[in-house]
Amino acid sequence: MNNLTATSNPLKNSERLLILTPLARFYDEYFDNLLKLNYPRNLIDLGFITPKTHAGNIATLKLQDALRKVQHGPKKSRFNKITILRQDFGTPTGQSEKERHAMNAQKDRRASMARARNSLVFTTLNPTISWVLWLDSDIIETPPSLFQDLAKHNKQVIVPNCFQRYKENGVWKERPYDFNSWQDSETALNLGKTMKDDEILLEGYAEMPTYRALMAYQRDEKADKHVEMLLDGVGGTALLVKASIHRDGAMFPTFPFYHLIETEGFAKMVRRLGHQPYGLPNYLVYHYNE
Amino acid sequence: MNNLTATSNPLKNSERLLILTPLARFYDEYFDNLLKLNYPRNLIDLGFITPKTHAGNIATLKLQDALRKVQHGPKKSRFNKITILRQDFGTPTGQSEKERHAMNAQKDRRASMARARNSLVFTTLNPTISWVLWLDSDIIETPPSLFQDLAKHNKQVIVPNCFQRYKENGVWKERPYDFNSWQDSETALNLGKTMKDDEILLEGYAEMPTYRALMAYQRDEKADKHVEMLLDGVGGTALLVKASIHRDGAMFPTFPFYHLIETEGFAKMVRRLGHQPYGLPNYLVYHYNE
Repeated sequence: MNNLTATSNPLKNSERLLILTPLARFYDEYFDNLLKLNYPRNLIDLGFITPKTHAGNIATLKLQDALRKVQHGPKKSRFNKITILRQDFGTPTGQSEKERHAMNAQKDRRASMARARNSLVFTTLNPTISWVLWLDSDIIETPPSLFQDLAKHNKQVIVPNCFQRYKENGVWKERPYDFNSWQDSETALNLGKTMKDDEILLEGYAEMPTYRALMAYQRDEKADKHVEMLLDGVGGTALLVKASIHRDGAMFPTFPFYHLIETEGFAKMVRRLGHQPYGLPNYLVYHYNE
Repeated sequence: MNNLTATSNPLKNSERLLILTPLARFYDEYFDNLLKLNYPRNLIDLGFITPKTHAGNIATLKLQDALRKVQHGPKKSRFNKITILRQDFGTPTGQSEKERHAMNAQKDRRASMARARNSLVFTTLNPTISWVLWLDSDIIETPPSLFQDLAKHNKQVIVPNCFQRYKENGVWKERPYDFNSWQDSETALNLGKTMKDDEILLEGYAEMPTYRALMAYQRDEKADKHVEMLLDGVGGTALLVKASIHRDGAMFPTFPFYHLIETEGFAKMVRRLGHQPYGLPNYLVYHYNE
């Protein structure tokens, strides 16, 4: 705030980063990857929010345990500040892969996720923070320089491409995972116009083809990792936001906002605030495979 | 967050209050009134945001000076925490009474005010806070029990009636001042439907009659001070909000949101989040008379 900068070279200015993670389950791989990030820990605040459920209690205990192991030694090698919030509202549906993606459960689930994200950012963003990196608890593999690589683009909002590794006939392969980063289509916009105020557009369902240009499908393995594309919707599995954008009011709508909610609604809000979200189709982070 | 409460009797639960003030000018009367509030200071955080202008520098210095005078002695008699932010964006227009109310300047001015409010709340709301009291820097007289009186109603969002004292022929009188607290009208809603996405409805201009029911005109001097009315728009000169509502995502739109911005857009957002704002037409706070 007070002479804060958020530049393409954060380290040079000792810019502070807040990493925010809504954490329903604790994966060792998520935490190991977090520890591998090579931005100085003393410039990083961590914020987590966990549900007040049995599974949430277990996740919280595991998280606290893991954090205890790293938060000792000289102050310079510790995270600057850690906040763990407990969600004081329920999560609406089960969390198995199948349940999570059933279309009629999506709206409630994503509204609840948006609420968790809002609680996190409203509660942990302090005056010293320049950048907010949203990193979901099921992101288990990223380049160690994830933050610096994204910040280098000096965008208000930027999102890498989220893939998933899987084994087929004993061979490791990878496939697109997060379909919430897209460029809008006439079809989707027109669909929106016919909808009631409270209906939402969802991506990735055969019964509602949007013909949006999905970043997930635009990866070119051989091309430059730093190729940018303009986005109208963004996913939140990994998402870098300049703190000033949140401070200007950008939050995650829990209600249909131009027929969009959560991170997709967030991208629309960013655009209403006069900014352009970007994506990096060839820069990958990897999602847990359940 | 973590087992926080926000009840009709905040003192009983030692609930923490955050008082937020966008401060363009420093009035002694504002500060004196702030000091007269009789909720325990050690349960109160203060947050201010001042513009980065010459006038803003002066206001900041005066504020710091005034705060220094009260922040000594036993910890129990001091405010728990004080944050002063400097606005890293301009204020669009002059600030004289006449300039402030010119209709075409309103939109920019209120968008800028919304941005200041968002910066404040996103940056100062920490996990211990139960309540947020918005109190403008030109509110110079309130009952000392303002917070407790409003909290007693146990509403998500509640707003008193903002009046102004003035002298006429040597006699002190009072008149309504803030016209942003209202119940919607068919006329205004229909007007909204004919508007472009980026146009806004404003209250208090002859050239755009809305026929909304303004709380400003519904004061009954002889009636109970605690009579409630439902509101669709709220003003922000004094405004009590449960912190959980902000955490759920309620912010002050800087862009037209259902053709409303700033505190009026905030009220619409609160309604989109499923809550009902209330007003107290007979409970008065007083605005500075320029």
